[in-house]
Amino acid sequence: MLQVHTAGVFDFDGYLSDRRSRVEGKLTEYLATGEPALLWEAMRYSALSGGKRLRALLTIAASEAVYAGSELQKLAPDLDCVEAVMPLAGAIEMVHAMSLIHDDLPCLDNDDLRRGKPTNHKVYGEAMALLAGDGLLTMATEVLIGASDSRIPRQNLLDVALGLSQAAGPSGMVGGQVKDMQFTGATDSKFDISTVESIHSAKTGALIRFALWSPAKLLGAQQKQSQALWRLGEIIGLAFQITDDLLDVTGDATTLGKTPGKDQATQKATWVRVFGLDGAREKLASMEAEGKELIEKNLLDNLDAPVLHSLLKYSIHREK
Amino acid sequence: MLQVHTAGVFDFDGYLSDRRSRVEGKLTEYLATGEPALLWEAMRYSALSGGKRLRALLTIAASEAVYAGSELQKLAPDLDCVEAVMPLAGAIEMVHAMSLIHDDLPCLDNDDLRRGKPTNHKVYGEAMALLAGDGLLTMATEVLIGASDSRIPRQNLLDVALGLSQAAGPSGMVGGQVKDMQFTGATDSKFDISTVESIHSAKTGALIRFALWSPAKLLGAQQKQSQALWRLGEIIGLAFQITDDLLDVTGDATTLGKTPGKDQATQKATWVRVFGLDGAREKLASMEAEGKELIEKNLLDNLDAPVLHSLLKYSIHREK
Repeated sequence: MLQVHTAGVFDFDGYLSDRRSRVEGKLTEYLATGEPALLWEAMRYSALSGGKRLRALLTIAASEAVYAGSELQKLAPDLDCVEAVMPLAGAIEMVHAMSLIHDDLPCLDNDDLRRGKPTNHKVYGEAMALLAGDGLLTMATEVLIGASDSRIPRQNLLDVALGLSQAAGPSGMVGGQVKDMQFTGATDSKFDISTVESIHSAKTGALIRFALWSPAKLLGAQQKQSQALWRLGEIIGLAFQITDDLLDVTGDATTLGKTPGKDQATQKATWVRVFGLDGAREKLASMEAEGKELIEKNLLDNLDAPVLHSLLKYSIHREK
Repeated sequence: MLQVHTAGVFDFDGYLSDRRSRVEGKLTEYLATGEPALLWEAMRYSALSGGKRLRALLTIAASEAVYAGSELQKLAPDLDCVEAVMPLAGAIEMVHAMSLIHDDLPCLDNDDLRRGKPTNHKVYGEAMALLAGDGLLTMATEVLIGASDSRIPRQNLLDVALGLSQAAGPSGMVGGQVKDMQFTGATDSKFDISTVESIHSAKTGALIRFALWSPAKLLGAQQKQSQALWRLGEIIGLAFQITDDLLDVTGDATTLGKTPGKDQATQKATWVRVFGLDGAREKLASMEAEGKELIEKNLLDNLDAPVLHSLLKYSIHREK
C-alpha cells in the first residue's frame, strides 16, 4: 500500500512528505475560493499555513493499518484507503486550525505569532478571525459528509461525524480550552496531576484520539483494532503534550517558530511544572514503550511498514 | 395531529405556546449540566434565554405539514413527527444562539443587551462567550446526529447534517455576517438592492430556509413539498428581515427588548434604507400573498390547520 519503500527500507521522511502533500492538496481543494472572498482567504491563511499535520498523518496511517480486512475493503476492493479518509483528515485539520485561530485571539492567549507568521487576527482583524474560525468549524462537517465516498457505509459516516463534534466540543477541545483558561495563573497548590491530565486529555487529546480511532470506524475495521487505536490515541495525545511542555522549556525560538518560556510566564498548568524535566522525560519513555507494544500486538499484522510506530516516536522526539 | 383545537377553531397562540414549551424542554435536556460547569452555564444562558423560537416552530410546523405520506410514516407509523424533529429543531436553535453570542462580541456588534438581558460576554467575559458559541455550534451537530431516532433513514440524516453545516457556514450564516460587517458603514452609493438581498439571504435567510426544508428531507417527504418549503423559507426569511428593519425604525424599546434606531446609527444595509417605509411595507404585502398561495397549492392537503400560514403572518405582523 505504501509507495515509499526503497530496497526494502521504509523511508519515513518520504512517507511523511508524500502524505502531507496529499493532505495539503486536498485542503486547498476543499477551501477553494468562495464568497465572501476575504473570509475564504482568512480561512485558507490558517488552514494552509503548513504545520506538522500530525492529526491528518495519524488518520492516514491508521487507515492504512486497518484497511485490509475492513468492511469497506470487502464492499469496495478498488478503493484507495488513503483517498477514502482524505475528507476526514481534512476535516480534522480544519477543526485544529479553527482552535488555533480562536485560541490566539486577544481575549484568550493574545498571541501575535503562530508557526513564525502573524496570527490570523493580526492579519485580518479580530472579527474576521472569529468568523474564519466559525467557518472552518462548519466546513469540517460539510467536507466530512459532503466529500466522503458514497460507498462508505452511512452509519459509519454518521458515527464519525458525531465523534468529530464530540471531540471538538464541550466534552473535548472546547471544554479543554475552558479548563486551561480557568487554571492558567492558578497557584501551585491549586492543581495536581489529575488536573493537568484532564486539561490535556480534553484540549489536545480528544482530537488526537479521534484522529486515530475515526478511520477504523469509517472503514469498518475489526473492533480489536479500533480499541487499540483509541488507546494509542490516548498515548500519543498525552506524549505529544508532554513533549510540547518540555520544548517550551528546552527549545529555542528559531526551531520552534514561537517564543519558548511562555508557559512559565503565564503560569500554565504543564507536565514540567508538576513533575520537573526528568519526571516528564521518564513519563515519555514509559509511554513510548506502552505504545510500541500496543502497535505490535494489535495493529502490525495489517501493516507493511511500522508507520504508526514511527509516528509515535516522532510525536515524542521532535524538536518543534 | 395538532392538539390545540377548540370547537373547530384553530388556537394559534395555544399551538405556539405548546410547541415552544416542548422545544424549551428538549433544549434544557440537550444542554443539561456537564463539565466544565461554567461553560455549560454560559451555553445555556444564551440557548435558553427565551426568544421567539421562530426557527424551531417552522421546523415543527413543516414536519406536521409533510409527515402524512412521508417515507418515515411508512417506516415507523407510530412515530410522533414532532418528537422526531426535536433534535433537528434543537440543533437549529443552538446554531442561532451561537450566532447571536458571536455577533454581540465587542469585535463585531459590541452589544450589551439581547432580549432585554445582558449579552453573554457581559456576564461571562469575552473568552467564555467565544467558547460558549463554539460549543453550541458543535453541540448542534452532536444533538442532531446523536439524539435523532434510529428509524430515520441514515442518508436523510446525513443530508440534513450536511445542510445544517452549509446553512451555518461560509455559504450561509457566517458568510452573511462577514458581508454585513463589510457593508456596515458603507455610503449609500455603494450598495443596492442586490447587496441587501445577498446579505440577508445568507445571514438570516439560510438558517430559516433550512428550518423549513430540513424536516421534509429528514422525514422523506414528497419532492413537491420539500421544494415548496424551500421557497416558503426564502419568503419567510426575507419577510422576517424586512420586518426587523421596519421595527428598528417604528418599534419601541420596551416591546422590542432592544434599542431601536441602531441600524441607522451604524449605517446598516437595510430594506428601509433602500426602499423607504412604504416600499418595504409593499414588498411585505406581496410576499405574504405569494407565501399564502404557495402553502395553499402545495402544502395544505396534508395540514389539518393553517399553521404554516399563521407562522408566515406572524413573521410579518409581529411587534417585536
